[in-house]
This record gives sequence, C-alpha cells and structure tokens, in this order.
Amino acid sequence: MNISGTSILSKRVSNGVNTKKILDDFKKQGARIETRTRVKLSGKKDFSLWYTPGVAVASTYLAKHPKEAREMSVKKNSVAVVSDGSAVLGLGNIGPYGALPVMEGKALIFKSIAGVDAWPLVLDTQDPDEIVRIVKAIAPSFGGINLEDIAAPKCFDIEKRLVAELDIPVMHDDQHGTAIVVLAGLMNAAKVVKKNMKGLKVVISGAGAAGTAVAKLLRASGIRDIILLDRAGTIYAGRPELNTHKKELAALTNPRKVKGGLAEAMEGSDVFIGVSGKGLLKTEHVASMAPRSIVFAMANPEPEILPDEAKKAGALVIATGRSDFPNQINNALVFPGIFRGALDRGVKKITEATKLRAARALAALVPKPSVTKIIPDLLDPRVMKAVARAVH
Amino acid sequence: MNISGTSILSKRVSNGVNTKKILDDFKKQGARIETRTRVKLSGKKDFSLWYTPGVAVASTYLAKHPKEAREMSVKKNSVAVVSDGSAVLGLGNIGPYGALPVMEGKALIFKSIAGVDAWPLVLDTQDPDEIVRIVKAIAPSFGGINLEDIAAPKCFDIEKRLVAELDIPVMHDDQHGTAIVVLAGLMNAAKVVKKNMKGLKVVISGAGAAGTAVAKLLRASGIRDIILLDRAGTIYAGRPELNTHKKELAALTNPRKVKGGLAEAMEGSDVFIGVSGKGLLKTEHVASMAPRSIVFAMANPEPEILPDEAKKAGALVIATGRSDFPNQINNALVFPGIFRGALDRGVKKITEATKLRAARALAALVPKPSVTKIIPDLLDPRVMKAVARAVH
Repeated sequence: MNISGTSILSKRVSNGVNTKKILDDFKKQGARIETRTRVKLSGKKDFSLWYTPGVAVASTYLAKHPKEAREMSVKKNSVAVVSDGSAVLGLGNIGPYGALPVMEGKALIFKSIAGVDAWPLVLDTQDPDEIVRIVKAIAPSFGGINLEDIAAPKCFDIEKRLVAELDIPVMHDDQHGTAIVVLAGLMNAAKVVKKNMKGLKVVISGAGAAGTAVAKLLRASGIRDIILLDRAGTIYAGRPELNTHKKELAALTNPRKVKGGLAEAMEGSDVFIGVSGKGLLKTEHVASMAPRSIVFAMANPEPEILPDEAKKAGALVIATGRSDFPNQINNALVFPGIFRGALDRGVKKITEATKLRAARALAALVPKPSVTKIIPDLLDPRVMKAVARAVH
Repeated sequence: MNISGTSILSKRVSNGVNTKKILDDFKKQGARIETRTRVKLSGKKDFSLWYTPGVAVASTYLAKHPKEAREMSVKKNSVAVVSDGSAVLGLGNIGPYGALPVMEGKALIFKSIAGVDAWPLVLDTQDPDEIVRIVKAIAPSFGGINLEDIAAPKCFDIEKRLVAELDIPVMHDDQHGTAIVVLAGLMNAAKVVKKNMKGLKVVISGAGAAGTAVAKLLRASGIRDIILLDRAGTIYAGRPELNTHKKELAALTNPRKVKGGLAEAMEGSDVFIGVSGKGLLKTEHVASMAPRSIVFAMANPEPEILPDEAKKAGALVIATGRSDFPNQINNALVFPGIFRGALDRGVKKITEATKLRAARALAALVPKPSVTKIIPDLLDPRVMKAVARAVH
C-alpha cells in the first residue's frame, strides 16, 4: 500500500487546520454512526412479536416471497457503502482501515441528508472477482450498493458486473456522483460564460474512475470535443499501449486527435476539468485557453491550480472540491438523493438518462448562476429532494 | 430449500397467535432497525471535520495504525449478525431472505439490551469456503461476528476457521449461546432436584450445532455421562457411518456405550435436553427417567414435549424455549452480554473458560431457584451486565 498521500495531507492540513485536533476529535468521538431500534422491546409481547415466535411468520413469508424483503426488512431503506481502500480520497491505496473513516463519513451523510440507513463495509481484499462475489453475497440485506474509492480500471468491471447481476441499484460514486455534479456545474458555468454547452472544448486531466465517468456523461449530454489525459498525455485512438478501458475512451473522445501533454490539449480549450493531482495545471495553460474559460480543479486535498492563480491567468469561472473556496463540486450533492430516489421508487439501475436528469435538476437549483455560484450549497435542503426526484 | 417448517408454524401460530396480524405488523413496520448519526452534520464546519478534508486525517492515521480502528470507528461497538439461512429457527434451510427477519431481530435485541450496534448480513451463498472468505473480508468494519442459523456440520468448521484467522471475537450463537444458557439452567435445576451436577446422567436429543456445543460445554463443566442422539439413535464410538464431527462427539460422550434410540438412552437418566424436533419425547420416556428428573424441551417452535405432559409423566423441573411457559431457555439471555463484554474489553476469543464463567454468572442471578424459576427473565436488567462481566 502507498501511504505517500500523508505528506501532502499534513502540508495541506497545516494550512489552517490542526491535524492533531482533528485526530483527537475522531479518537474522542469513536463511532460516528450507530444503530437505532425502530420498535420497542420492553416487554414479553414485544419479544414474542419481533423475535420468537413472531419473527418465524416473517421468515416463512419472506422465504416464499423474497422480493417483499424490500418492504418488510432493513432492505427497505439501507445501502452498503463498500470499498476495498484501493483509491481513497487523494491518499491512494491505503487499505480497508484507511478507507473506513471515509465510508463511515458517507454513511453519516447518507443518514443526515437523505435518511438512508447506510453501513460502511470495508473489504480486506482487493481482488476484483472476490469483491464482486462478496458484494453479490451480502446484497440481500441491502436496498442499494454504493461502491466507493475503488481504483480504476478494475472499478469499471466490478461495477458493470454488479449492475448486471444484482436487482438493487449499484453505483460507484467516484464515477457517477462526480460526473453528475460536474455536469450540473458545467451547465451553469456555460451560462455564466455565455457559451453553448455542446460546442465546448473540454480537457479532462485524469483518466481514472472520475475522469472516465465525467467524459462519458459529458458526451451523453451532447458535448463532442473532449480530450482526456493520463500520465502519458492525451488519449487518442492508436496511441501505443492503451489498455482496453483506455481504448474505449480513445474511441469516444479526442475527435481532433490532439497529441502531446496538457500544453497541447489546453490550447484554445473552453473548459478544464481536473480529477488528477495537486498543482498540475500551470498559469500558462490557463492563459492559453479560449476567452471566458472555465476551470474545475477538483484534485483532493490540493487542487490542480489554486483559484486565485487560475483567475489571474484569465479563467472566468473556477470551481474546486473544497469548501473554503466558492463553487464546491462535491459528490455529497448527489449520492444521498440518488439512493433516496432509487429506494423510494424501487429503481434498480441508475441509467445515463437518470444521471442527465439529476444533473439538470441540480443545475436548475441555481437559476441565475454567477461566477461564484454555479452549484447549490451542500447544505441547501432542496438538493437531496431535487436529485431524488430525478431518479425514476 | 426446504420450507416445510411452514405448516408446523402455521399450526403453532394458530394456537393462540394470529399469523396474519403478525405479518401485517411486520409489513407495516418495515425495518426494525436503522442507523443514527452520533455527530451533527449541520454546518460546513461539521462537513470539514467528519467528511472532507478532516476525514483524511483519520484515514491517514488508520492506514498506519489499523488496530486503532477499534477506538475511532464503527468497529468500536459493532457486530455483524451473519447467516446463510441454512438452518433458521425450526424452519430449516430457508435461505437469506427467510433468515433476514431473524438476523434483524437479533440486531434489535443487541441494541435494546446491550447497546451494541449490530447489522444483519444474510448471505446469498451457502458454500462454507465462500462464507469464510466473505466474513474475513468484511471483518474490518466490525468489532465482532455473530454467526447465526448456519447448519451443522459446516458451522463447526466455519466458526473454527474464523476464530483462528480473525482478531475479533467470532461466536456461532446457536452453539455457544445455547450451551451457556442450558448450562446455567442446569446448574440451578440440579440445585432444585438436589443432585450433584457432575454425577448427572444427561441425554441430548439432537446432535446439530446446539446439541454439539451443549455436550461440549456440559463436559467442560465436569459432567461425564452424556448421551447424544441424532436421527439414527445414540452416538457411540464405533457406530457405522459417523462423519468426522460425530466421531469426535462419540469419543467425548456416551461412556457407557448405550446403543439404541431415545427409549434406551432415557432409561435412568436425570436430564433430557431437547434441541431436536416437535413431540419427539414421549411420556413413557420421561416416566423411565430417574426420580426428580429434569426436562429441557427446547425445540422451536414446538417443544419435544409440552410441559404439562412432561410434568404428568414425572419430570420435576421443566424448561422450554418459549415465553409462554416458565423457564424460558433463550439465547437472548447470553449473546448481548457476551459481545458487550468482548467489545468493552477487547476480548478476541470466547473461550471455554469464558462460557463457563458466563453460565455461572447467569445461574447466580437466581440464588434460590425453584421448579418454575431456574433462569433469570429475559427482561431482567442484571442479565446482560452479569454475562458481560464474565467475558475477560
């Protein structure tokens, strides 16, 4: 496992946040979520109903009518937040225990924002076949599966197989949560810069889980000129040594077959979307963009470029993943509502159409977007419901 | 899957309980447990601490110090209630959905009685190797594993492997919860009938998960004359076609090498312990026991013999698994306290010594046992704490 993220983090956190204080808070707090009983168990009657012998009636019934578990068990309102810890935040492959606080944090958000009963399940394996088998095996207890922080490219196949084989919604949030919120932000950013969405020239730095899903959803929204970059530069059809996943991306993107690095890709572009790493975007890259450019620098914990630098270099609308700058592009705007909607309506697949609707619904919550306000606030109570309504 | 338990159940439930009413209650109720947030998430500060970027501090720390997850995550207070649905209550192999209400009921009891955050995990596989792999893989999120309603003999190997390979407590409750509460009841029953524990002649009907564990724990308590019966009759060394598990039992029990069926085993015995099936024990069997006999008829939902019949036939102390008769021998007296104690003290193995201590602690809560009071009440608030104190 690679724990090299640590040094980046300590630096980042030392810029204003007290690492030791945070760690103490986590230690003092212990668990951030717990279970709560929804029925009384205070007398023999309660035991007889909800445990033995009453429970045998429900068991006998569900053995015969398994689909009704959705209505009469924890399955009704629950989501497993599953990770193998192979790609956690900006920290990399830090394993199940490293991933646990993040998954617990997501469970906390699920409950706080959407009333969804989510339980963190971090896995002590990173083998894709094992992960698929495990998630399939534990699925009967849950109404949905939120995959999280699983590294690309294995995350694509894992999700695809689970979506195909399970009859509950399965979503890898790093992919689709990110893609939905990026598309929503971009819709409003395009309004601010007065450019037509479909004509945007978009550069995506990072071809992992998030970058791939963003590219696909932007394409589904009608945008055609998208260039993806990985560590080796722009992805184009015919580039040597592309894996299957990247071959697919090459076929879908980069219609002008731009070769080279960020410098080549960025020249004349309208939009930069960073899901890559700290400081990768230089001011000269931004300066080479088309007028009225849009920069989403979403690397965590440190963005590809700091907002004031991007602004100085000429960008008009700037977003990051951070709460201490305007325009926070955060998955928490999306995943609670997606699963709330799916659970409420028994939706089994989160389709491309659903994602587009969710992005539009999210964007519509900011009817008059501005340079510093392209996306609703995380705490805006309308957000979860608007996204949930898009899931049908 | 065998859902033949249904007819037994409907009959049983029609004796006084309204099946339709119970089913309606379950349907109306939906989930019986949910999650609850233990921290506020109402402002940006809360998000920054418990989610991003704060959570990265905890993640980085736990990646380096995984053992501290016990103190600063859901692992601190959580138990997975895991079943493959292969041996549910008296209903048999009814699969994961059939098992779900029982596991959810146990999660409810865990929280109500012991404040333990338990989540039901029913598995869509019945393969022992798969079950071991899955439980090992999900273990990082949990502080303990309660295996439940897994059929014998595979349950023995599954539990043994998990106990050996995990560093959190693993207990198959059908085995050890039952064994502990039976031993506790028997200690007090022996006082009532004024017989020495170690000299008791004990017959155990049923050599599955519960029967096996009861035999082993009674033996560990010093009792030597124990005869186990399965469908083929008494188990004795040299009986043809014994599997590995039953060969082991044969070596540990039946020192008088009694052959035959219940009639042969029961003659002159002091104690009958039924973990088998409805109506198996006949009045003539009870009549053939030694004077001042003890009958624990614990088959669910219908006991091996009804208490008034056993009494008429001469039994002095009678217990069942049911709440509508005196002396309810119920695992819920044990499992909440076992895991409470293990979680509180970081105990990693539930040893034979722990089980003996727990049984003694439970028995001691009824200092003056009588024919109708050999075991504390399920709702006695001292029970959980007394059992928990025994775990160290």
